[in-house]
Amino acid sequence: MCGIFGIVAAKNSESVEELPILALNGLSALQHRGTESAGLVGSDGITKNQVEIIKGQGLVRDVFTEDSIYKMKDNRLLIGHNRYSTAGKKKSGINCVQPFVVYTARGTVSIAHNGELVDAKKKRKEVLHEGVGLSTDTDSELIAQMVAKSIALNVKCHTDADYGEITRELAATMSALNMSYSLLVMTYDRIYAIRDPFGNRPLCVGTVFDRETGGEIAYCAASESCAFPMNSKINFEVRPGEIVELSENGIRSVWQMKPQSPLAMCIFEYVYFARNDSEIEGQQVQSVREECGRTMALEDTVEADLIGNVPESSLSAAIGYASQSGIPFEPVFHRNSYVGRSFIQPNNEMRQNAIKMKFGVLKKKVNDQRVVLVDDSIVRGNTMKTLVKLLREAGAKEVHLRIASPPVKFPCFMGINIPTRAELIASNKTIEEICEYVGADSVRYLSVEGLLNSVQKGIEKSTTFAVGHCTACLTGNYPTTIEI
Amino acid sequence: MCGIFGIVAAKNSESVEELPILALNGLSALQHRGTESAGLVGSDGITKNQVEIIKGQGLVRDVFTEDSIYKMKDNRLLIGHNRYSTAGKKKSGINCVQPFVVYTARGTVSIAHNGELVDAKKKRKEVLHEGVGLSTDTDSELIAQMVAKSIALNVKCHTDADYGEITRELAATMSALNMSYSLLVMTYDRIYAIRDPFGNRPLCVGTVFDRETGGEIAYCAASESCAFPMNSKINFEVRPGEIVELSENGIRSVWQMKPQSPLAMCIFEYVYFARNDSEIEGQQVQSVREECGRTMALEDTVEADLIGNVPESSLSAAIGYASQSGIPFEPVFHRNSYVGRSFIQPNNEMRQNAIKMKFGVLKKKVNDQRVVLVDDSIVRGNTMKTLVKLLREAGAKEVHLRIASPPVKFPCFMGINIPTRAELIASNKTIEEICEYVGADSVRYLSVEGLLNSVQKGIEKSTTFAVGHCTACLTGNYPTTIEI
Amino acid sequence: MCGIFGIVAAKNSESVEELPILALNGLSALQHRGTESAGLVGSDGITKNQVEIIKGQGLVRDVFTEDSIYKMKDNRLLIGHNRYSTAGKKKSGINCVQPFVVYTARGTVSIAHNGELVDAKKKRKEVLHEGVGLSTDTDSELIAQMVAKSIALNVKCHTDADYGEITRELAATMSALNMSYSLLVMTYDRIYAIRDPFGNRPLCVGTVFDRETGGEIAYCAASESCAFPMNSKINFEVRPGEIVELSENGIRSVWQMKPQSPLAMCIFEYVYFARNDSEIEGQQVQSVREECGRTMALEDTVEADLIGNVPESSLSAAIGYASQSGIPFEPVFHRNSYVGRSFIQPNNEMRQNAIKMKFGVLKKKVNDQRVVLVDDSIVRGNTMKTLVKLLREAGAKEVHLRIASPPVKFPCFMGINIPTRAELIASNKTIEEICEYVGADSVRYLSVEGLLNSVQKGIEKSTTFAVGHCTACLTGNYPTTIEI
Amino acid sequence: MCGIFGIVAAKNSESVEELPILALNGLSALQHRGTESAGLVGSDGITKNQVEIIKGQGLVRDVFTEDSIYKMKDNRLLIGHNRYSTAGKKKSGINCVQPFVVYTARGTVSIAHNGELVDAKKKRKEVLHEGVGLSTDTDSELIAQMVAKSIALNVKCHTDADYGEITRELAATMSALNMSYSLLVMTYDRIYAIRDPFGNRPLCVGTVFDRETGGEIAYCAASESCAFPMNSKINFEVRPGEIVELSENGIRSVWQMKPQSPLAMCIFEYVYFARNDSEIEGQQVQSVREECGRTMALEDTVEADLIGNVPESSLSAAIGYASQSGIPFEPVFHRNSYVGRSFIQPNNEMRQNAIKMKFGVLKKKVNDQRVVLVDDSIVRGNTMKTLVKLLREAGAKEVHLRIASPPVKFPCFMGINIPTRAELIASNKTIEEICEYVGADSVRYLSVEGLLNSVQKGIEKSTTFAVGHCTACLTGNYPTTIEI
Repeated sequence: MCGIFGIVAAKNSESVEELPILALNGLSALQHRGTESAGLVGSDGITKNQVEIIKGQGLVRDVFTEDSIYKMKDNRLLIGHNRYSTAGKKKSGINCVQPFVVYTARGTVSIAHNGELVDAKKKRKEVLHEGVGLSTDTDSELIAQMVAKSIALNVKCHTDADYGEITRELAATMSALNMSYSLLVMTYDRIYAIRDPFGNRPLCVGTVFDRETGGEIAYCAASESCAFPMNSKINFEVRPGEIVELSENGIRSVWQMKPQSPLAMCIFEYVYFARNDSEIEGQQVQSVREECGRTMALEDTVEADLIGNVPESSLSAAIGYASQSGIPFEPVFHRNSYVGRSFIQPNNEMRQNAIKMKFGVLKKKVNDQRVVLVDDSIVRGNTMKTLVKLLREAGAKEVHLRIASPPVKFPCFMGINIPTRAELIASNKTIEEICEYVGADSVRYLSVEGLLNSVQKGIEKSTTFAVGHCTACLTGNYPTTIEI
Repeated sequence: MCGIFGIVAAKNSESVEELPILALNGLSALQHRGTESAGLVGSDGITKNQVEIIKGQGLVRDVFTEDSIYKMKDNRLLIGHNRYSTAGKKKSGINCVQPFVVYTARGTVSIAHNGELVDAKKKRKEVLHEGVGLSTDTDSELIAQMVAKSIALNVKCHTDADYGEITRELAATMSALNMSYSLLVMTYDRIYAIRDPFGNRPLCVGTVFDRETGGEIAYCAASESCAFPMNSKINFEVRPGEIVELSENGIRSVWQMKPQSPLAMCIFEYVYFARNDSEIEGQQVQSVREECGRTMALEDTVEADLIGNVPESSLSAAIGYASQSGIPFEPVFHRNSYVGRSFIQPNNEMRQNAIKMKFGVLKKKVNDQRVVLVDDSIVRGNTMKTLVKLLREAGAKEVHLRIASPPVKFPCFMGINIPTRAELIASNKTIEEICEYVGADSVRYLSVEGLLNSVQKGIEKSTTFAVGHCTACLTGNYPTTIEI
Repeated sequence: MCGIFGIVAAKNSESVEELPILALNGLSALQHRGTESAGLVGSDGITKNQVEIIKGQGLVRDVFTEDSIYKMKDNRLLIGHNRYSTAGKKKSGINCVQPFVVYTARGTVSIAHNGELVDAKKKRKEVLHEGVGLSTDTDSELIAQMVAKSIALNVKCHTDADYGEITRELAATMSALNMSYSLLVMTYDRIYAIRDPFGNRPLCVGTVFDRETGGEIAYCAASESCAFPMNSKINFEVRPGEIVELSENGIRSVWQMKPQSPLAMCIFEYVYFARNDSEIEGQQVQSVREECGRTMALEDTVEADLIGNVPESSLSAAIGYASQSGIPFEPVFHRNSYVGRSFIQPNNEMRQNAIKMKFGVLKKKVNDQRVVLVDDSIVRGNTMKTLVKLLREAGAKEVHLRIASPPVKFPCFMGINIPTRAELIASNKTIEEICEYVGADSVRYLSVEGLLNSVQKGIEKSTTFAVGHCTACLTGNYPTTIEI
Repeated sequence: MCGIFGIVAAKNSESVEELPILALNGLSALQHRGTESAGLVGSDGITKNQVEIIKGQGLVRDVFTEDSIYKMKDNRLLIGHNRYSTAGKKKSGINCVQPFVVYTARGTVSIAHNGELVDAKKKRKEVLHEGVGLSTDTDSELIAQMVAKSIALNVKCHTDADYGEITRELAATMSALNMSYSLLVMTYDRIYAIRDPFGNRPLCVGTVFDRETGGEIAYCAASESCAFPMNSKINFEVRPGEIVELSENGIRSVWQMKPQSPLAMCIFEYVYFARNDSEIEGQQVQSVREECGRTMALEDTVEADLIGNVPESSLSAAIGYASQSGIPFEPVFHRNSYVGRSFIQPNNEMRQNAIKMKFGVLKKKVNDQRVVLVDDSIVRGNTMKTLVKLLREAGAKEVHLRIASPPVKFPCFMGINIPTRAELIASNKTIEEICEYVGADSVRYLSVEGLLNSVQKGIEKSTTFAVGHCTACLTGNYPTTIEI
């Protein structure tokens, strides 16, 4: 999981100096998709062999300063990236911060990648044996070298007029890749927005308008629509297998690969990753989550006095559950947003205390009540165990746990850093055992059908291709062959 | 506004090394009361003339590290402080970080102060003319020097046995002070928890238990009960004018000044400052806020399709309003918790864009709806203006603004950093003008009576003294003479 | 040991904005006198109750930035301080960084102190029992409170016209103090430069001229003349027991206490502390060191092929020795100025290796030679032991160690952080034992008489008072009663 | 100019954990060759596809911490690099920090490069058109990709037994390169030390011994011998065109390219770059500099009272001059080693003042004297102008400037960052004009013949190849064709 954002100034736009700010605002809006590192690369639209790069480990607000904006102020094209922490799977560190930039036979090419190549190992071996030294362990460098190779092969086909035009090279690269990737690729004068033929990761493009004149001032692409600025509209979501070009002349589709059928859009984007205020497949993510809550209530029969949530993530599902069940929603925890990393806690009791400091229980609300606690998912179960304990210590008569998604039982090879099966509580315990472990009176999960229905019922008809979602982590059905 | 926390190990407690962690957890829990700086001072309970001090500017998580805990590990008494940013009123900077520590004729005395002395100027002049040089501009140093003076006067009355006992000196100091203060004062072997006779700022004391044996392991005091650890209970809220002593022998009331009548507990603690999960005057703060929302709905007649809130602060009031009015509550904004300080925005449009990045609107929810937007208070009105605009751009048919407290029109001299009257929107505009300024279809505030009723109806009968709340910032009725 | 620097703009000077730079240049020039922390305090010459303060731990170049200069740019008076690391003797930390600033009944008073009060303990107890709380463990706060008290006593004697004039208060404070101190005391409109009646620490005053017009632009005071800017002259060295006032009107002596006879100027300023390019008692420090080398050669009879030094400190003594003895001077070590703190070395061999990295030996120079190695002093002897080993491993036939000062055997209570006697090699070993310990063929020290003669023969006749130097660390003869 | 250092543990060595410390000590010792950035790469000698990398901008002491040593503790092979600031010529920044590491078809290859490829532009174009994307602008990446290509071509020739053996690939790469380079190339189990056929940059190899047993514990390679640890000996200087392999089995020459005749060893290593305590071409660098001073005195006829130097660099030349001329050497400046970067100085006078703070003049030494000021070279002349002014203001009757090298008139394309000709004072002014510019009474440079004689007279006979030195920056005679 990562976040990617790109923006190009429209021809004659007079707001170029605002672009770096829009780009950083966009990356901030996508911060939930990756907090390990952040990077921004800019091109002035004229110089073919030079880009401005600012990269660093940490949040957008830590990596970038006012100086960054000043340094980037003359760029008419920018792409940026938030990197997800995938410690344990791939190498981390400053070398891995994206976007990845290479000099090629046709100038600099910058790449921001969301997703994970399932056949990275094989591709990597091929590239090394062609005599290319790789300086990182990342998929983005691999893709970059494939593009560079394709550019060198076709270098004679290009004139100065189409120096930054690399559609055919990108198409060739896509043909050689399996899933999963959503990409932004920047040459000196254009940005390509690309989705893999499975449509595994989201990507959308939009237009920014001048508030006063209504004229177009920039074109942008982002993992989620929440990254677009105020005065903008979503043009469309990039189709599975499509290459969309953004340049000063606007947005146009330049190539379409045959998409897979059925598609394999990651269903966990709806459950957990995407922001409530984003639109995916034409629907408000929050509405899907509320629907999950409602569906769960329909599947359920518990009697209780109030519906609480684990703030902030599961508010939507809790409200949906409450509205369907008729049981009132009440906050039962206060989340302390100032708590950062916890200090190392010397023992189990202190670790629970650290969780208590993050989630303060509203004792007088909970005392003597039958509480339904709604959360969006359970991974390891440790935090949930303490939350249930906190509710009991505050006097709750009963605690019923309701999870607005099915149990996560299988690893993801397409970009989501799910712990190993050994750590996944649902992979190792029955629902009864989970209930006992967390100390609840009952535990229920949303069914796979319930989730698929909640997600798919609201998808806009306008979507051309067959709808399809990847549920591999829930069902073990992977959309492509996985070679580990 | 500041947060204070103190803790003392019980006699024979074997969990001393956990005290620094409990203290930092406590300060973290009080972070909402002050984010400018933080400090912690520890005493080992034996050495009379030495304390460990760790102080710094920024959040608790920035100032303290694992090393801090290690450095503090042998202390059996600790007091800490979070400082509120009061730029423009008083000097800021590293010198002003509390707790303030002085060496006196009877060893070190450390002071953490929440509140603001209304007669600080006069007291300061007195101290300087007695020949004492002051090294900061803070009330806490002033109080410290008054205590030091009183100690020197009484130094002969003490024996080695009561070296750390300074009740009479603290009582003398209280007699010379006007409002407002809640204090923690630490000598080498005890902590005093003190509230001014108006009861202006909250302060409570509690006991921490061993989870396994049930034995007492520590005694603590805090601005709000949310700072107490998991395995603890609130003993009581310190009474107006009372001095409570915490030592290894437990908690006991050692002096009581005649409290003012009526009392003047700050009503904005309920409206805005205190945490939802704290208990003040025996009631859950969240319940009071929900009640404010309900009362507001009773005072109101608007027709609408949904009730939204400005996350996270006004969720309780919005839920209260929704439950009373029967109009459904729906999230209308997603708050991006990763946005830190904003980058400097070059123009008004970009400033609005920055607010948009903090509050993403759920377009599909809001489109074509009549929205009631609930917030807890309005200060300058700039953010609200943009939020209303965002709702309108998302397609809201009507936007009705409902503020769950009366208009803030007057300055506070008792510790809350309200902007000058020139900046306060309610001080300069009629409600109609505010409505026009923020671009809403209607604006209504909760009445002063409505607020007082919502606050006072739930106060526990057990409170000994006449209930009373300071509403100076809303009504201009100050509880004491203010000399500026 | 510390460094102090002050500067006042001359009336009508147009170069005020250069003052902060001159002050930081001055502090940088005095950095050898203290590297633990640095501070600068500025007054605009008008505002009686406010100063700008910038303080921090580390070197001048670390503590101050371009922003510091900007922040200080409107100040017409500045005093600064470099603090010497005295860990183990007194408390360290940010609270102890000087100058120390107090608000008094007559406005702010800022104090920078070089030296150490031999009766600090007694004075401290007096102050505490007068009811003054002290917030640090430093002599400078003690002095500040004594001045504040004296100001409060005399506050009625002052009019607005002489608000910043505190000569009588400073004189009263001096009368109550023993040695040792050189002080800069700043009120809102003047700086006082003060030396104790023993003249233990140096202090001089000078005038800065406009290069083009020759007009006076500022007056300054410094521990050593090397801190004065380029276009300046030394007016005079402050006399023992004298108070000199620097204001916009120039430099004038305002009070003179009876100086002690004999004086007790610290002889280690000549041996080690002061910079070669400073002038003390009218003579170039480098010349005194060269003379020490010559005197040592006269006292010596060794036969050798070359004279080497331990760079950089003992170059002068080595050249003096070479010129007197006729044996050629040759560099035998290269000092690596990039080595900072060493990494922790796991064993003795690695520790020696770390010293080797700091001092690279010139093997081909040394091979097969009889080497005289000159250093200015030996404290613990560990480094010297490795240097001798390096010379031997490089092939030196003989290594004769010559120390251009007598053995340091006694602790200093007047500001120099000499290790405890247990650590002082000369306190525990005979010269023969030292020779054996460091592995030299012979070791000789300069005699006490030789040192005194070398220092005193060049002192300018113009000095009014009886010359006298403190040799306590060499002889055990302390100039005043020491109560520990 | 850069510094490179490598070390390999001897078979069965028990001192492996000391290697990282020895490596950092070595890099510290080479810090004078480059202060912009530093990096260290380690291999455990077993794992073929993984290295530990620590890199950063700044000095060795800033980039590395105790943690670095811990992180590197299991590595049996390490190479490191100090990067010279070449701003304006090539891109800077974190991406350019060496050693450069690539994954190849035969595992990781790490490269540290001292020098500059004169045909980098052409080579770069070739690599890009072969379809390799480059991620930096550096020569080291270029070399790394050439090696990676050669490895892929020969990958079938290798067995597991010789997996880390890449002599033939390195030889192929050398054959395709022009000057200049000294390289350290590390595979998983060996380090190659390589010099270009011109011998332009120095490089030597040595053995580290156990102090107690005398057994071999490690083998190392370094730009200069000053980087070798205490208990070590120089085996030999790598010959022009030679590949030397260092492995756990020791040091052996594995390939020899035909060296150029005449060779082109950079003469500025003797004049300025190398450390006094290093040995180059078998001679002590300090002795060469002293000889330059002596030769200059022979070429000179000035009458003066004393010989001074600009500390610290030109001490050797000054002593040589003094010994030949019979005029006494005397320090005339004190260099303040605490001055870091200067603060921005608002005007010319303040800039001079900043130089004065770095070089304090010994006024009483200089007053009324005829001074010969010796320096090793002049580049722009600004500092020298101020130094002459300082001597005059201190009362010097005459100031004669003597430069112990010929005028620098031409750019270097082989790694030394000489300013453009527009900035080089000797490129634009006659010696008379320089004399006038700096304000001296006379200026003389050492002749080119004088320099060559001083350098070459002491070279050890054992050197196999024809001696030859590059004097391009002095004479304009470049050793190879330069294509810019």
